Amino acid sequence: METLIQLGEKAKKAARSLARATSSEKNDALRLMSQALVDHTETILTANKLDLIAAKENGISENMIDRLVLTEERIKAMADGILEIAELPDPIGQVDGMWQNEAGLTIGKQRVPLGVIGIIYESRPNVTTDAGSLCFKAGNAVILRGGKEAIYSNKALIHILQDALQPTVFPPTTIQLVEDTTRESSKEMMRLNRYLDVLIPRGGAKLIQTVLETATVPVIETGTGNCHVYIDKDAQLTMATDIIVNAKCSRPSVCNAAETLLIHEDVAETFLPVIEKALAPWHVELRADEKALSYLQHAIPATQEDWETEFLDFILAVKVVSSLDEAIEHIDRYSTGHSEVIVTDNYAAGMQFHREVDSAAVYINASTRFTDGFEFGFGAEIGISTQKLHARGPMGLTELTSSKYIIFGEGQIR
Amino acid sequence: METLIQLGEKAKKAARSLARATSSEKNDALRLMSQALVDHTETILTANKLDLIAAKENGISENMIDRLVLTEERIKAMADGILEIAELPDPIGQVDGMWQNEAGLTIGKQRVPLGVIGIIYESRPNVTTDAGSLCFKAGNAVILRGGKEAIYSNKALIHILQDALQPTVFPPTTIQLVEDTTRESSKEMMRLNRYLDVLIPRGGAKLIQTVLETATVPVIETGTGNCHVYIDKDAQLTMATDIIVNAKCSRPSVCNAAETLLIHEDVAETFLPVIEKALAPWHVELRADEKALSYLQHAIPATQEDWETEFLDFILAVKVVSSLDEAIEHIDRYSTGHSEVIVTDNYAAGMQFHREVDSAAVYINASTRFTDGFEFGFGAEIGISTQKLHARGPMGLTELTSSKYIIFGEGQIR
Repeated sequence: METLIQLGEKAKKAARSLARATSSEKNDALRLMSQALVDHTETILTANKLDLIAAKENGISENMIDRLVLTEERIKAMADGILEIAELPDPIGQVDGMWQNEAGLTIGKQRVPLGVIGIIYESRPNVTTDAGSLCFKAGNAVILRGGKEAIYSNKALIHILQDALQPTVFPPTTIQLVEDTTRESSKEMMRLNRYLDVLIPRGGAKLIQTVLETATVPVIETGTGNCHVYIDKDAQLTMATDIIVNAKCSRPSVCNAAETLLIHEDVAETFLPVIEKALAPWHVELRADEKALSYLQHAIPATQEDWETEFLDFILAVKVVSSLDEAIEHIDRYSTGHSEVIVTDNYAAGMQFHREVDSAAVYINASTRFTDGFEFGFGAEIGISTQKLHARGPMGLTELTSSKYIIFGEGQIR
Repeated sequence: METLIQLGEKAKKAARSLARATSSEKNDALRLMSQALVDHTETILTANKLDLIAAKENGISENMIDRLVLTEERIKAMADGILEIAELPDPIGQVDGMWQNEAGLTIGKQRVPLGVIGIIYESRPNVTTDAGSLCFKAGNAVILRGGKEAIYSNKALIHILQDALQPTVFPPTTIQLVEDTTRESSKEMMRLNRYLDVLIPRGGAKLIQTVLETATVPVIETGTGNCHVYIDKDAQLTMATDIIVNAKCSRPSVCNAAETLLIHEDVAETFLPVIEKALAPWHVELRADEKALSYLQHAIPATQEDWETEFLDFILAVKVVSSLDEAIEHIDRYSTGHSEVIVTDNYAAGMQFHREVDSAAVYINASTRFTDGFEFGFGAEIGISTQKLHARGPMGLTELTSSKYIIFGEGQIR
């Protein structure tokens, strides 16, 4: 088993050849990787079975097993995902602006790869191919560190991807896996400053917390979403109901699902019973403040903790507010800065919400569920950043790049 | 003396009001701050005298004292600097792109402030007003932590700036100073994740190293420049000489000064004696590899360490290389990723250098000394980033901002 330093050294070397590659060299390699997944479906399924046996022995939850399991269809989807990445425009080499300075130098800002990207993730083996191929397309070497539950699947996948690179100009070390899945290796990776240009953790609140406490490598924090829907006094009942039902129930386990409903006191009495009825088919548990309780049939009292919690489940905190300002203050205090919605027909209220709410995605009259790289039209997504540095919101290929200034002179000195 | 947590809480609150301010509110406040510096020149000079007395008692070097000392002219320059910042276009609110997605949502990417910025710097008191006013213009609250050598000057400056904010909509806590100048307070600041959105260290290699080892707050690394000038076989002698003299001697103490000269073996014999003569008036010490030594009159042998060192002095490492590739490999290995130059009349060599050298600023036929926010035409500079995340190269106002997505819907659900 290679040490992280060995992986890091090889990745850094691979990054250099990758940064110099043309788009067609990268796209051809991606197509080979995609085909290799299809060709080796049996091998992947066999490896995945080993993970599933171990998972059952370790009494892992059904939910987790569902994330872990691969089928022929899922492998086909992973292969198709790589093909789609091959079709995306290449951000590398693009010059975002070019100008002449006072000394007559022509200065351009050109997109270049970040270098070596580390990704720490949990049980889904599809992240191995998704994240690996996205980093590759953006010209980066990648070191992947998946969860121990998926280690057999991940090893098989990486072996296949590396093998697919054999006939190309890229060394297999372009995409590497950390086979040591102990917590120590994870922490060591978080401090691998010499080799990693950025670390992207993809996982639950606990992983993100460990990264924040431990990492000295530059990190892009992703995916904690305590998202709010605020129904203004000037909201339409049907639109408000549709949006909260969609934001809460269409997929509650993801970070762009809504967790708290804030509602203006002027409409609470009329709207809340309708909303409760609309949420009933999903058995959504409502945890309400005192005022909201009085309008709801089956709600239970909310605790302080409920305002802070990303339930990721069929649970919704409900609070009646006396004004838009109070709604914004609540969001300021409890939001993780992911996605927030105002439902209103009032122009001024919408604009104030846009201006004053400080989150990655701020919506007027739409569901939080749209915060997603594909829905935004990026054609890909490596995660949703909830930090303000480098990238904020859904991250596509561009967010996996850096820039350099290229300067054309004719002997200028200063 | 307030604790860092108290400063952090106040800054976070101030950041909210700052984010909602209009450009004219901010510019008016900047003009008041500028005027206040001029009005209180005497107070600032008196405080500065206390720092100078302490500096002399502590036997601080002349070089350091020169950085510390304020005069009426220097204070006027600081005040003028703030006025210039007031005149710059406000990046906040700008929408960098707006499009419609498949669901018919109108999605825009809008510039917003980062929030709270921490700056750790050393003895120059002008950083207090420069950095403070730049962060302010970009809508950020700032916590400044200057060196203990300048504590009296910094306290006076901050007091004057805060006082100038009294008639404005901004709380004085918009710009704060850490008065505790112990190393512990500095380290605590590096881990103030709850309050700081980013930390920008401005100082020598030792400070940067401590930050890298200690910080858990997102950091923008600045200002280490082991910069290279490569003279190609197809270079013009006069241009090559002018560029290396300018890059080394015009201001050796700054990060964009050149530290190593690489020269192609085909021209070493002709060029090196001319270059040595041109550098002689500055008494530049040449530390050369074996080949270069044979062409130089007064050089001494270079050690391994010399290739790695940012001398910040009238010292230049010199190495003869057999090819452009060897030059690029040397840069790859020893550069800090700041600024590198090729001097050549060969088109293919210039393009290869641009493509393959991975530094913030890559020049053909110009001096490294142009790597500077003002020279690039940004109208301001908060530092020169040598990292790849968020910002790379000279950082102006835009680099002190983040973005958020503003989304206009009409009831869309997913």
